[in-house]
Amino acid sequence: MQEKIRETLNKTKPLDSGAQKKVQDWLDQLVKPQGSLGRLEDLAVQLGGISGGFFPSKFRKKIVIMAADHGVAAEGVSLYPSEVTGQMVMNFINGGAAINVLSRLVGSEVRVVDMGVAADLNIDGLSKAGIRVGGTGNFAKELAMSREEAQAALLYGIGIAEEEVISGVQVLATGEMGIGNTTASSAAVAALTGLAPSVLVGRGTGLGDAGLAHKISVVERALELHKPDPADPLDVLSKVGGLEIAGLCGLILGAAASGCPVVLDGFISTAAALLAVKLSPSAFYYLIPSHLSQEPGHGPLLEFMGLKPLLHLNMRLGEGTGAALCMNLLEGAVRLLSEMPTFAEAGVSEKKGGVNI
Amino acid sequence: MQEKIRETLNKTKPLDSGAQKKVQDWLDQLVKPQGSLGRLEDLAVQLGGISGGFFPSKFRKKIVIMAADHGVAAEGVSLYPSEVTGQMVMNFINGGAAINVLSRLVGSEVRVVDMGVAADLNIDGLSKAGIRVGGTGNFAKELAMSREEAQAALLYGIGIAEEEVISGVQVLATGEMGIGNTTASSAAVAALTGLAPSVLVGRGTGLGDAGLAHKISVVERALELHKPDPADPLDVLSKVGGLEIAGLCGLILGAAASGCPVVLDGFISTAAALLAVKLSPSAFYYLIPSHLSQEPGHGPLLEFMGLKPLLHLNMRLGEGTGAALCMNLLEGAVRLLSEMPTFAEAGVSEKKGGVNI
Repeated sequence: MQEKIRETLNKTKPLDSGAQKKVQDWLDQLVKPQGSLGRLEDLAVQLGGISGGFFPSKFRKKIVIMAADHGVAAEGVSLYPSEVTGQMVMNFINGGAAINVLSRLVGSEVRVVDMGVAADLNIDGLSKAGIRVGGTGNFAKELAMSREEAQAALLYGIGIAEEEVISGVQVLATGEMGIGNTTASSAAVAALTGLAPSVLVGRGTGLGDAGLAHKISVVERALELHKPDPADPLDVLSKVGGLEIAGLCGLILGAAASGCPVVLDGFISTAAALLAVKLSPSAFYYLIPSHLSQEPGHGPLLEFMGLKPLLHLNMRLGEGTGAALCMNLLEGAVRLLSEMPTFAEAGVSEKKGGVNI
Repeated sequence: MQEKIRETLNKTKPLDSGAQKKVQDWLDQLVKPQGSLGRLEDLAVQLGGISGGFFPSKFRKKIVIMAADHGVAAEGVSLYPSEVTGQMVMNFINGGAAINVLSRLVGSEVRVVDMGVAADLNIDGLSKAGIRVGGTGNFAKELAMSREEAQAALLYGIGIAEEEVISGVQVLATGEMGIGNTTASSAAVAALTGLAPSVLVGRGTGLGDAGLAHKISVVERALELHKPDPADPLDVLSKVGGLEIAGLCGLILGAAASGCPVVLDGFISTAAALLAVKLSPSAFYYLIPSHLSQEPGHGPLLEFMGLKPLLHLNMRLGEGTGAALCMNLLEGAVRLLSEMPTFAEAGVSEKKGGVNI
């Protein structure tokens, strides 16, 4: 198991700087002031570096929603009961959630993965990891999962990414569902970054002030109890993580190892990305941040990682909704590359003598 | 002329608060934590208030690009020669500019308006205002235009909005092109807000440090020379404005008076929106900000107006490119309203006893 994980981590290549330069040079000839398309140009260059040339102007995209339950929900850290996780998985499969609406809008496929939902779900179209029945243990009292379970969840996510890329998906995106998973993500991010739980923990699905204070103390006590090792992402995952967080971490690692860009959704997805980058620093080059969540920990986490969100929509739903809305920006970036003429082709004068006055 | 303008200003209605409440109540029943779709929910409510009910989930959209030349370009405030304005208008009509690519991406129509381009353009598909031949005067030395010309440009923009709404357009957006127009916008915004030119003036299409310092001093001297009256938007327009800025101001006023939402692009478009709101405060409710431009004045201007940008793409191209990318978010907002089931319909449990713990 460790062998396969190590193999994946070693497979991730840095971006093709020659291709990046080629894309930037082309962008600089198009009929617009140089650099004036800002982050769209950065995206085009990044995608070029990932694909080793001009990224296709039409591409297959898929949002992978990983769902799991969290023992820590028993501590009363969420407004919603754990049964909602399984119910929402059914809703994803039936096409009735926000993420289904937004995926249809942007022409993205959706894949739903049961990484460890408490309910026993047997539905067509649902991938089941079957690693740990019933979800994680309550990390306020015990390990969330064993180190072996964390490795298995990671491997399962890696496998999904590999499978999708082989089947022709060209852009992956992360989504999640799991009552209690902002608590697990806050704990994992606090352990890895040293940022205080009071900075990271938020209201999740809508806690009041007392609920928020309680949630912070649950995270603080869990970190004291387990003392997860910040230098060992698997230790963090097994002590205070979640099965969908581990699965998404694997998905990101698998995407990067397979040379596929991966669009991150909100706080939980970015926590998984931080774990991935700790395991394989070059996975960073394959990450595309999407929105800035309303969860207070998301901004500091993105900043810690050196990622800047493109969308400021004050959302806090998860599911991959922010990542879905980012697909349009990626398409814009690559379409500009293929559809815009150069100054010469458009018959437009370049800047005066090329001098920057 | 003043009569027709006054009539338009008086026609703008406040939003339908009953419809807004109906939309918010519906959003609160959909299968997601209340408020978790953030700004998308705000957009759905705003559109509901504008249309007096549920905004249609498919809607016709049009980006109106207004172009004009600026006498102040003679002061060397841009990297590009004035002839580029007319060349880019040709490029818009031929479908080869960034805005054409992005409009195709989001399914928006484009209309190109010559508000006062120096070149004599006679092309099919180009609307021509014909108010002032050759563009504005050099406001470093003389008035940009007469008060009557500013009024005529305003009226022309109002007429375009009315025409488009009658023809069935349901969302309008602003775009612009005009070598020198960040200079005019900075001067107008400085006059109206009291913000310093050094805060507002930016590099435009890419000025260096010396060019930037020169541009700031051109604006400072123009404000000293003309002393535009901050309480009189037409005085500001005629002294330091631009023909496309006046046209866009009219377009915004006409859209609001016709009950049509209008998506703002970057700094120049937002300057036109500030002028519009000064003339008709209730026009504010019809404004939808899109992106935060790289132009340094855009952030302070948006903040002054109480508008928060949705997209942070570091772009500085204009043309309506940021507004185009925002169309996808509007579509997402209204599609969620019409396509998401309620908790009951989806068979998902609501929060515990409805209590916010």
